[in-house]
Amino acid sequence: MAAESKMKTRKVAIIGASGYSGEELVRLLLHHPHAELAAVTSRQNAGQTLAQVFPKFASHPISKTLRFTEPKAELLAKQAEVVFLALPHGVAAEYAVPLLDAGCAVIDLSADFRMKSAERYREFYAHDHPAPELLKKSVYGLPEIYREEIKKSLLIASPGCYPTSILLPLLPLLKAGLIKSTGIIADALSGVTGAGRKVELEYLFAECNESARPYGIPRHRHLSEMEEQLSAAAGEPVVIQFSPHLIPLNRGMLATLYLAPAKPFENQKQMAAMQEQITRCYQTAYGAEPFVRLLEGTALPDTKNVAGTNVIEIAWRLDPRTGRLIVMSALDNLTKGASGQAVQNMNILRGFPETAGLW
Amino acid sequence: MAAESKMKTRKVAIIGASGYSGEELVRLLLHHPHAELAAVTSRQNAGQTLAQVFPKFASHPISKTLRFTEPKAELLAKQAEVVFLALPHGVAAEYAVPLLDAGCAVIDLSADFRMKSAERYREFYAHDHPAPELLKKSVYGLPEIYREEIKKSLLIASPGCYPTSILLPLLPLLKAGLIKSTGIIADALSGVTGAGRKVELEYLFAECNESARPYGIPRHRHLSEMEEQLSAAAGEPVVIQFSPHLIPLNRGMLATLYLAPAKPFENQKQMAAMQEQITRCYQTAYGAEPFVRLLEGTALPDTKNVAGTNVIEIAWRLDPRTGRLIVMSALDNLTKGASGQAVQNMNILRGFPETAGLW
Amino acid sequence: MAAESKMKTRKVAIIGASGYSGEELVRLLLHHPHAELAAVTSRQNAGQTLAQVFPKFASHPISKTLRFTEPKAELLAKQAEVVFLALPHGVAAEYAVPLLDAGCAVIDLSADFRMKSAERYREFYAHDHPAPELLKKSVYGLPEIYREEIKKSLLIASPGCYPTSILLPLLPLLKAGLIKSTGIIADALSGVTGAGRKVELEYLFAECNESARPYGIPRHRHLSEMEEQLSAAAGEPVVIQFSPHLIPLNRGMLATLYLAPAKPFENQKQMAAMQEQITRCYQTAYGAEPFVRLLEGTALPDTKNVAGTNVIEIAWRLDPRTGRLIVMSALDNLTKGASGQAVQNMNILRGFPETAGLW
Amino acid sequence: MAAESKMKTRKVAIIGASGYSGEELVRLLLHHPHAELAAVTSRQNAGQTLAQVFPKFASHPISKTLRFTEPKAELLAKQAEVVFLALPHGVAAEYAVPLLDAGCAVIDLSADFRMKSAERYREFYAHDHPAPELLKKSVYGLPEIYREEIKKSLLIASPGCYPTSILLPLLPLLKAGLIKSTGIIADALSGVTGAGRKVELEYLFAECNESARPYGIPRHRHLSEMEEQLSAAAGEPVVIQFSPHLIPLNRGMLATLYLAPAKPFENQKQMAAMQEQITRCYQTAYGAEPFVRLLEGTALPDTKNVAGTNVIEIAWRLDPRTGRLIVMSALDNLTKGASGQAVQNMNILRGFPETAGLW
Repeated sequence: MAAESKMKTRKVAIIGASGYSGEELVRLLLHHPHAELAAVTSRQNAGQTLAQVFPKFASHPISKTLRFTEPKAELLAKQAEVVFLALPHGVAAEYAVPLLDAGCAVIDLSADFRMKSAERYREFYAHDHPAPELLKKSVYGLPEIYREEIKKSLLIASPGCYPTSILLPLLPLLKAGLIKSTGIIADALSGVTGAGRKVELEYLFAECNESARPYGIPRHRHLSEMEEQLSAAAGEPVVIQFSPHLIPLNRGMLATLYLAPAKPFENQKQMAAMQEQITRCYQTAYGAEPFVRLLEGTALPDTKNVAGTNVIEIAWRLDPRTGRLIVMSALDNLTKGASGQAVQNMNILRGFPETAGLW
Repeated sequence: MAAESKMKTRKVAIIGASGYSGEELVRLLLHHPHAELAAVTSRQNAGQTLAQVFPKFASHPISKTLRFTEPKAELLAKQAEVVFLALPHGVAAEYAVPLLDAGCAVIDLSADFRMKSAERYREFYAHDHPAPELLKKSVYGLPEIYREEIKKSLLIASPGCYPTSILLPLLPLLKAGLIKSTGIIADALSGVTGAGRKVELEYLFAECNESARPYGIPRHRHLSEMEEQLSAAAGEPVVIQFSPHLIPLNRGMLATLYLAPAKPFENQKQMAAMQEQITRCYQTAYGAEPFVRLLEGTALPDTKNVAGTNVIEIAWRLDPRTGRLIVMSALDNLTKGASGQAVQNMNILRGFPETAGLW
Repeated sequence: MAAESKMKTRKVAIIGASGYSGEELVRLLLHHPHAELAAVTSRQNAGQTLAQVFPKFASHPISKTLRFTEPKAELLAKQAEVVFLALPHGVAAEYAVPLLDAGCAVIDLSADFRMKSAERYREFYAHDHPAPELLKKSVYGLPEIYREEIKKSLLIASPGCYPTSILLPLLPLLKAGLIKSTGIIADALSGVTGAGRKVELEYLFAECNESARPYGIPRHRHLSEMEEQLSAAAGEPVVIQFSPHLIPLNRGMLATLYLAPAKPFENQKQMAAMQEQITRCYQTAYGAEPFVRLLEGTALPDTKNVAGTNVIEIAWRLDPRTGRLIVMSALDNLTKGASGQAVQNMNILRGFPETAGLW
Repeated sequence: MAAESKMKTRKVAIIGASGYSGEELVRLLLHHPHAELAAVTSRQNAGQTLAQVFPKFASHPISKTLRFTEPKAELLAKQAEVVFLALPHGVAAEYAVPLLDAGCAVIDLSADFRMKSAERYREFYAHDHPAPELLKKSVYGLPEIYREEIKKSLLIASPGCYPTSILLPLLPLLKAGLIKSTGIIADALSGVTGAGRKVELEYLFAECNESARPYGIPRHRHLSEMEEQLSAAAGEPVVIQFSPHLIPLNRGMLATLYLAPAKPFENQKQMAAMQEQITRCYQTAYGAEPFVRLLEGTALPDTKNVAGTNVIEIAWRLDPRTGRLIVMSALDNLTKGASGQAVQNMNILRGFPETAGLW
């Protein structure tokens, strides 16, 4: 505590601060004990104060003086030492290059640096990667998996809500060889902020309220990064089924994963053994993690229990009737699924307590 | 039209009219061209008028005079010739026996008569079936599948929202041998009225709003009737994975089904052939059905497009990456998933136009 | 019934059918027993079928053949004899003129013809009225007030949700001299479809869900038509306070009116006398109206009891502590507050049963 | 900062911690820098851990060990020095007496000690006050008004959502004589948690979603405390009109107040003078308050901008057409309208920074 309170405060900036992820970054960083929000950018809101764009932050002392600016990398590099990119895919890369050159740490919330393979990027995003040379330098910012790498990198590709809600439950099982790498199905439900602050007909209130609907089936862009991560964990190419759905929540994501255990469990004894293995696997992977909540007893994940927090809830069930393992997770798509995780990455990168500003 | 307008009006009754399914039955029957709502029962509301219990129906002429009564089978048998049972599972059977004895047609919205096997009932409902001798006489009230049998029976076990949303998409594929009968997964989302008008903590507004959560995993009671129907269609025992979720909708159910085609599709030609087969299969099964909407082009099901109607929307996609067939359906859990389907059954049973009162 | 079923079916058209009011008109007219939907127009959707634009109507036989067209008055005049204008304010007038010239009946859902005074129009809408000569010919389409005039006119200015929810409760009291014409306050809550299908940031799901907010205070455009109607009823100029609020409903409007009785009620006897007068006043005005529900006993209006219907609920309370009369109303902003009322006007105009297509 | 971090941590307890206000107290106190949650009570949950009752708090270290107990005042007096009572009206008093006798500070969230007059309590609550001798000792816990008194008292009657949202905007105007004390109207909208965690039919999800409705009109219990406070501020008896409404929000309250300025403003100059007076009045009263946000320019209150915070937003408009002043406020009914305010009271009482644990 004494050490912590002496920690130097670092200046941070957000490029693209007017979207939902940007707004959530502002919320978290305004009250972060070791960060000072030095700059926020937004083309459409340039010139306005934080208080004008986001009335909800108007009680914060800096909200009347901090003004949105046009995003200019050179300038931002002088204002901040950590820069968050909350930009659309394909746009983030053009800012990352000059910021890194100027010595900033870059935490990118887009998909631009999440893959190692530029070919795979082109396959799923339908254009050449804008800065393929950086793919090798970037680290996939899933702290529970890549904490050590994050400490050493200056370019963090912070994963979004779908990958986080699906990879965190899957990776330990795959690494431990407890499930087959084939036949994986991920069925996921997203709140509407998951689509970003897009002013489009389909996201109007009356189009989303009382509506539940699938979309992007069967081939969603985020498959690319999820499969790259899963393949690395499995040691062989993994192809999964991924079905996103839009449901009328502001915040929240729920994933239900259908998995085949590596070994059958055909009697009580085998089932008990498998239950113990899975319990131990998750306990080893996440038992000490501050932001992973392994549910016990009859509890199942519920988005309302993680809303506004950086926590992911995980529960699982073996089904003796079908021989399957079902794993369920819940997180807040804007926090652990976006900006909370980005701040967690900053904390790791800069040596702050990992939970700083996230409780 | 001329013939239709001369049709005799039949007297109908609803036992258990104060729940959400009962209320939806009232809504549909008050405006049905060939039915006259002669009696509604409810233990807790006995003595009150329809207008008092459901202010929304107060503009209908009979709402001020029709009073809820205690449910007494003998009396109801004299008041109506078709009786709807909107009662909890296990309670419906005790009314069905005397009503059938008295010559009434019975349309039961509970699960009591949906299975042929009393053993299976006991296995899933944990008590002996209250009237096993009736199981042979009852017909599973899925009109698109059992229309001819419904015409001839006086005991219709009208299926609920989960079975309807899952069986209608699955049965034609299984019968046609287009999919394997193994490995079927049904992931389903239900609006809150699907749980009934239960005054329990977990269904309070603030517990459901901004909440998405699984429940009853991995073994839900409705598996019993679904698997019985699927087994009959497949000609062999079928075991499926079924995962229900609660989401913040008043009305609506969305099912996503993960299926393995019977034959692989490893190239464009095989895929095109399979697409044609599936299209033809659904077209043959449902092309002329008034309440099944086979979506075309890029359209996917959306609960808001079926709310308040008796329609089920179905769409499907082949995924060449995983070799799977994904089928999605949407319906209103209170209409096609409960009371609308029950009225459709009455229409068939009594020789009314099948869509009477349902547009 | 016999007479009714022989009624000629009339061809109708909707100009501006892609907004929420237009969509609701489509819903009602597709199932109207005496109307045939002959044309729908929409600049942005021209060329698409009804089924493509509104999947929810895809089960109707004409939805696959009826295509949206560009709005051309001359052409529409040949296709339909009743034309509904579901257009923004200021645009409706340019269609009304040629359609009336061609002999069509025009039912306008915009505010363009709701006032008698072109000066007042300019004062509130900030531009000259586009067709002031028509203001004398138009009838304010509030059927419960102007039924006889509606029968004889070919230009009906069908009022919207705020005026309907406020005027219907107020006009009988003012006409009967039971309340003072000064100091009237109307506090109203609107569901989000009341704003139209506007693709604007403030109507996105996540901006409206979990949000309640006033807007347009203290001077909203609809004051102009409301005060003109109230002044006519009172026989003297009336100025009211009107406060609209946006709340997270798809459909629904709730108004709370604060009124000063013309005479004080300072004891039980005076209060009882006044209660009798008000009861009689409303009973006389609306006791026989099919779409006005005068609530009794302890019942208060609730938007969920009128959703999807053409009914307005009205209740009132005298407050002996403050000497005020409080009147509350609820309606569905898209039905009685827009398209249902427009259809009711068509029914009156064309001599159909007034409730045709509205139950 | 240095002084603050050396502050002693105080042990606190919550009696009645299983309702929504209790849950919000838990949320705030778990992360309060100077409070230690030593005990939580709940009859129905006694024996269960905090993590079991509220899965959302399961990540906090003490959630697995802190167990709900039966509420026993003597025991609690030994465990904590500040006790929050989150109990129904009428029940709180029986705990307050022994806790005060034992030397605890008591912060009561019920209405039991909010009035000075036992007669008025009986008039509105229909039973004798259970501890009338304490009414003189208690302080009305509206920090912005009674900060100095709160510092010196051990019994704080912390006001709820309706009084807070209405009194904070009204009191400065009344005290300054800027508005008349007659004719005040308060129209208020409440989210569903405002009703408490009551397991009753009317608060089920499907009864509240898509519903807006008035209730408790014209005489709501909270009138008693509001009028007592307003009368004290005005120096004469004040009677107001108060109309609560229930709308489908989890959290949030919006109040619209209709007021008569003490002097008329009949020209631009008078209006400008009055605007300046009101601006100055609010600025003087709340300009330095951390939890009152005086909106500027065109901004109006919005519940989504205060959700989860202890802030109340206030905006106002003069209407030259009607001569009225309209004041609007928004707050979170569970935070500034209940538990946040209670924690603010504790901070004042114990000499902590007033915003501790509330950002």
